Amino acid sequence: MIRLSRQRELCCVVFYLPADGKAPLDFRHSHSLIDDMNILYIMFDQLRFDYLSCAGHKTLKTPHMDRIAQMGVRFTNCYTQSPVCGAARMSAYTGRYVSSHGAQWNGHPLRVGEPTLGDHLRDNDVGCWLIGKTHMKADAKGMARLGLAPDSIIGARQAECGFDVWCRDDGLWAQGPDGFYDTKRSPYNEYLKSKGYTGENPWADFANAATNGANIASGWFMSNANKPANIYEDDSETPWLTSQAIDFMEQAKGPWCAHVSYIKPHWPYIVPAPYHDMYSVDDIQPVVRSKAEQNDPNLIFGAFMDGRIGRAFARDDVRETVIPAYMGLIKQCDDQMGRLLKYLEDSGQLDSTMIILTSDHGDYLGDHWMGEKDLFHAPSVKVPLIVYDPRETANPTRGRTCDALVESIDVTATIIAASGGVVPDHIVEGRSLMPYVEGREPDTPRAFVISEYDYSLHPVCSALGTPPRDARLFMVATHDWKLIHAEGGFPPMLFDLKNDPDELQDLGRDPDYARQRAALYEHLHSWGLRMSQRITISDSDIIHRRENGAATGVVLGVFDEGDISPHQVSSYVGKVPPRA
Amino acid sequence: MIRLSRQRELCCVVFYLPADGKAPLDFRHSHSLIDDMNILYIMFDQLRFDYLSCAGHKTLKTPHMDRIAQMGVRFTNCYTQSPVCGAARMSAYTGRYVSSHGAQWNGHPLRVGEPTLGDHLRDNDVGCWLIGKTHMKADAKGMARLGLAPDSIIGARQAECGFDVWCRDDGLWAQGPDGFYDTKRSPYNEYLKSKGYTGENPWADFANAATNGANIASGWFMSNANKPANIYEDDSETPWLTSQAIDFMEQAKGPWCAHVSYIKPHWPYIVPAPYHDMYSVDDIQPVVRSKAEQNDPNLIFGAFMDGRIGRAFARDDVRETVIPAYMGLIKQCDDQMGRLLKYLEDSGQLDSTMIILTSDHGDYLGDHWMGEKDLFHAPSVKVPLIVYDPRETANPTRGRTCDALVESIDVTATIIAASGGVVPDHIVEGRSLMPYVEGREPDTPRAFVISEYDYSLHPVCSALGTPPRDARLFMVATHDWKLIHAEGGFPPMLFDLKNDPDELQDLGRDPDYARQRAALYEHLHSWGLRMSQRITISDSDIIHRRENGAATGVVLGVFDEGDISPHQVSSYVGKVPPRA
Repeated sequence: MIRLSRQRELCCVVFYLPADGKAPLDFRHSHSLIDDMNILYIMFDQLRFDYLSCAGHKTLKTPHMDRIAQMGVRFTNCYTQSPVCGAARMSAYTGRYVSSHGAQWNGHPLRVGEPTLGDHLRDNDVGCWLIGKTHMKADAKGMARLGLAPDSIIGARQAECGFDVWCRDDGLWAQGPDGFYDTKRSPYNEYLKSKGYTGENPWADFANAATNGANIASGWFMSNANKPANIYEDDSETPWLTSQAIDFMEQAKGPWCAHVSYIKPHWPYIVPAPYHDMYSVDDIQPVVRSKAEQNDPNLIFGAFMDGRIGRAFARDDVRETVIPAYMGLIKQCDDQMGRLLKYLEDSGQLDSTMIILTSDHGDYLGDHWMGEKDLFHAPSVKVPLIVYDPRETANPTRGRTCDALVESIDVTATIIAASGGVVPDHIVEGRSLMPYVEGREPDTPRAFVISEYDYSLHPVCSALGTPPRDARLFMVATHDWKLIHAEGGFPPMLFDLKNDPDELQDLGRDPDYARQRAALYEHLHSWGLRMSQRITISDSDIIHRRENGAATGVVLGVFDEGDISPHQVSSYVGKVPPRA
Repeated sequence: MIRLSRQRELCCVVFYLPADGKAPLDFRHSHSLIDDMNILYIMFDQLRFDYLSCAGHKTLKTPHMDRIAQMGVRFTNCYTQSPVCGAARMSAYTGRYVSSHGAQWNGHPLRVGEPTLGDHLRDNDVGCWLIGKTHMKADAKGMARLGLAPDSIIGARQAECGFDVWCRDDGLWAQGPDGFYDTKRSPYNEYLKSKGYTGENPWADFANAATNGANIASGWFMSNANKPANIYEDDSETPWLTSQAIDFMEQAKGPWCAHVSYIKPHWPYIVPAPYHDMYSVDDIQPVVRSKAEQNDPNLIFGAFMDGRIGRAFARDDVRETVIPAYMGLIKQCDDQMGRLLKYLEDSGQLDSTMIILTSDHGDYLGDHWMGEKDLFHAPSVKVPLIVYDPRETANPTRGRTCDALVESIDVTATIIAASGGVVPDHIVEGRSLMPYVEGREPDTPRAFVISEYDYSLHPVCSALGTPPRDARLFMVATHDWKLIHAEGGFPPMLFDLKNDPDELQDLGRDPDYARQRAALYEHLHSWGLRMSQRITISDSDIIHRRENGAATGVVLGVFDEGDISPHQVSSYVGKVPPRA
C-alpha cells in the first residue's frame, strides 16, 4: 500500500483506455527511425483542456482532434506555465519557467539572448518555423545595446523568439480611439484586403464582426456572439492559417519543426456560419461554481471575481451567448485539423510527421464566477496536450491517455528530444515526454507542477493596491492538492483535488489544513531555489572539467614539494632565469 | 521594547565611533554638488574584513586604509555574494545575486547580454573602466549566436563584463605541465619582460618566487612564504597596478568610474622585501577554531576541512609561515593606497573623487580548520567596505562605522546612485548605500543578507558524490543568526552570532533550535521567490502602462455598448464597409 501511494506521489505513468471504452485504433507503425521526421507543433489559443470530445465534452464533437489522440497519447494533466498568453508562450518557446525568463506578461519583452527552442533545434540542424501567433515582444533596448539590427537574420530571430518566420500573425488587430493594439504588419488583414474586404481593418469589421442591418455588430460586444461573422468561412482566420501551414509544408525542406499557432478559439467570441448556430444553450455544460465561493473569498480571487470580466461571466445570459460561439470556434478548429490531416495523408507525410496539439491556457467561461483566464482553477490552468509520434517506438501508447503531471515547458524538451537532440537541461527546465510517449517511466517524473501569474499590469493590481513586484502568484499542484501562493502578504488558496475535484472549497485559511499547505510550500520553496540561470555551462561539462582538470599550475594547500606529484612539481622548480 | 527590537531586526543604521575612541578627523566638505565627480572602485582580492587596523587588527597597521575610513564611512557587516572570486565578481559587476546571473564559479561564462555596471553607468554618460582583475570569462557561444565579434566595441564590452579596458590583468599566470591556467595576454608579464626579467613567465619565476641559491623557490609552495620574492618591490604586482591606475587618471576624461582591482593579497603567498619579514609569528592573531568543530561536523563542512587546503591550514607551521606573508602583502597594499591618496591630493582630485575600497571575499587562514574561502564563516564571507564620498552630503558620517547588514551588490547600486543615475531596481538587486553614507535610514534596509556557493567544480563535490546541480549552498544571516542551507539533502548549519560570535558551535542539527532555523528558512524561501528576471520592464513602467492604458481596442468582459464609454464605443460601431 505504501509503495503504491509513493508511486502515485511520484506521478507514475498511468495509462488507461479512452473514456468511451473503445479499444485504441489499430494504428501501429513499423518505422524505428524516420529520416527527416518533421514536427507540427500546433497551438490553439485559449482552448480549454476539456472542450474536446476525447476529453469528455458531452456535446462538442471533435473527431479530428480525437483521431490525433487515437494515433498518439493524450496527457490529461498538462499545466500551462502561466494562465496568460504572453508569459505562457515565452515559456513554451524557451522551455523555461516564467520567473526564469522574466517575460511575465503580455507585452513584456523577452530579454535578448534568452535561448529559445529555435536555437536548440538549429544546433541540431532542424529548422524552426513560425506560422501564426507568438505574442513575442522584442527587447528593443537590449538589441540596441548589442547592436543587433532587427532586419538581420540574427536580429530577426532575436525579435521573433527564435523562430524563422513563415508567417506571423498574432491575431489581435484590435483598434480603438488611440489606434491599433498591435502596430505590426498584419498578413491576415492583407489577405482579407486581397479578397475584397475593404476598409482599414477588415479583421475587425468582417472577420470579427457580424451585421445588424447595414451596421457593424462588433464581436467585441459579447451580445453579438450568437450572430454569424460577416465573412466567408473559408476566409476566416482558422482556415487561412491552415492554408498557410499547408503552403509551408508544400515548400519546406526538412527536417523542420513548424509552430502552427492559431489565434482561435480566443476572443472576440464570434464565428462565421455555419458554426455560429451549431450549438445552443442546451449544449452548454453545467457551470462549475458555488455560492460559497463568493462568501468571504480569498482577497485576490475576490478581486478577480469582482472585476468587469468576472461580473460579466457570472451572468447566465453572457454564458449562454458566448459559450455556443466558443464551441463553434472549436468545431471550426477541429474541422481544420481534419483538413490538415487529410493533406498529410494525401501527400504521404502522415507517417513521417510528429503532431503535437496543445493550447497556451484555458478559459473560465463563467466557472468559478470568472471569465477569461488569470487564475489557477483547472479550466484556466490546464491545457489539452496530444502527442502523436509516428515512429514504431510510440506504438505502445497509441490511443491511450497519460495522467502524469506535466507542464507546457515539457513540450519544448519533447520537441528537442524527438528531433534527435539532447535536451540542454542546464537551460531548458522542461523535461522530455518521450518516455511517456514510448510507454516508459521517466527517470525524473514530476512530483509537482508549477504555474505562475504576474498581475502587475492587471487592473486587479490597482484595486488591491499591490506594489508591482508583489503582484505575483505561484501555483504548486500535485495529483491530489493545489496551493496558490501570493506574494505581498495575502493568504494562500488550497484545494483538495481528490475530494473536491471541482475546486469549490478554498481551504487556504482553514487551520485544519496547515499540514497540507506546509507540504506544498515545501515543494514551492525547493523550486524557488532551483538552478535556473547557470545556462552557460552544462552539468556534464562541469563533471568533465572536474574530472579532467588540466594541470595548468594552480595548486592550493601545498606546503612543499612532497604535497604534489613529481609531474606537477616539475613546473615549479628550476634555475632562476637571468635578469637582464 | 518591542519597537526597539523591531528596529534592530530591520537593521537600522547604528553609527558609532571607531574602536580606538578617537573622534573622527575634521574632514568636512562644502561641496553639495561636484561636477564630474569620479569614482575609484578599489577591490582587493582575498582581503579579510578584519585585517585592517581600523577594523581592529592588533598588529597590522594600515594607516592609509584607515585614513580613507576616517574620511568616509566603514561598513562592518558587508557580505560577499559568494566566497569565491568569479561568482563574487560577476555579482559585483552586475549588482545581481549569483543565482540571478548564473556565473556561479570561476570560469563559468557570464551570459551574453547580462546587464552590467558599465551598461548602467554609460546610460548616464559615465565611463566605466577596468584596471586589473575581473575573472570574467566571456560567453563565447552566446556571443557567436548573436554574431558579436570580440574585437568590436560592443563585443569587447560583452567579453569584458561591461568594462572598457584600460588594463586587464587577472593576476593568475599559473603554469603547469599542461600549459597556462589563463591563456589571455598578460600585461604584467609584458611589463616584467620590458624591465629585464627573462623567461616565458617572470610572474611565476620572479614576482611569485623567491630563490634558494641558484634555484627557484616557488611561491606555490607555502613553505617559501617567509622568503622575499625575487623582484624589486617597485616592480611587483601591487605597485605596478597602482601605476596603471595613476596613468589612467592622468589621461582619463571624466566623469568616470575606474575599477582598480588588485590581485593581492591573494595567493601565491609571497611578497618582496621589505614586506616579507615585516611580521613574525608573534604578530599572528589567535586562531579561531575549536576541537569541537571536528567532532561530528556537518558533512559538507567536514569534507572541506578534510580537503588538502583544510588539512594544510590546520597545521601551525603552515599558518606561521603563511600569515606573516599575507600580512606583508596587505601592508604593501596599504602603502600603495598611500601612494594613490598622495597622487589624488597632489593633483587636486581628492575632493572630487569618491573612493570605495572593498574585497571580493576573505581568507580563512586556518580559522575553523579551513584555508582559502569556500564557506560562510566570517573570515571567508565578510569583506571590508569603506566608502568615502567627497560631497558635503556625506559629512555626517565621516570617520564613522555602520553596522547595517549590507552586501557586495549594494556597492554596484551605490556607484550608480552616487554618479547621478537612478538604480534600475528591476535589474540591479543591490540597494544603494547612499542613505547610510549620508547618515539617513534607507527606505528598505536589509532584514537579512544572502551569500551563495556553488561547489560543483570543487573536489569536495566528488568526495561527497553530489550531483552538480545539488552542489549549491545558501547562507542567510541576520545580525544575530546565520543559517547555511545545502541543496542535496544535507542538513543545514546554524550559528548564534550573538552568543557565539566566533561561530564555533554548529546548531544546525540541534532540535532545540528548530524555531530559529525556521525563521531563517522563511527569509531564504522568500528570497528564492524574489523577482530577479523581469529585467526588460521597470516597476514604474508597469505602473505607467497600467494607469495610462491606451485605448487601442481590446475590451474584455463587455456584453454590449452600455458596458463601456461612448468614446470607446465609437471604435466598434459604424456602417458595414462594402465588399469588393
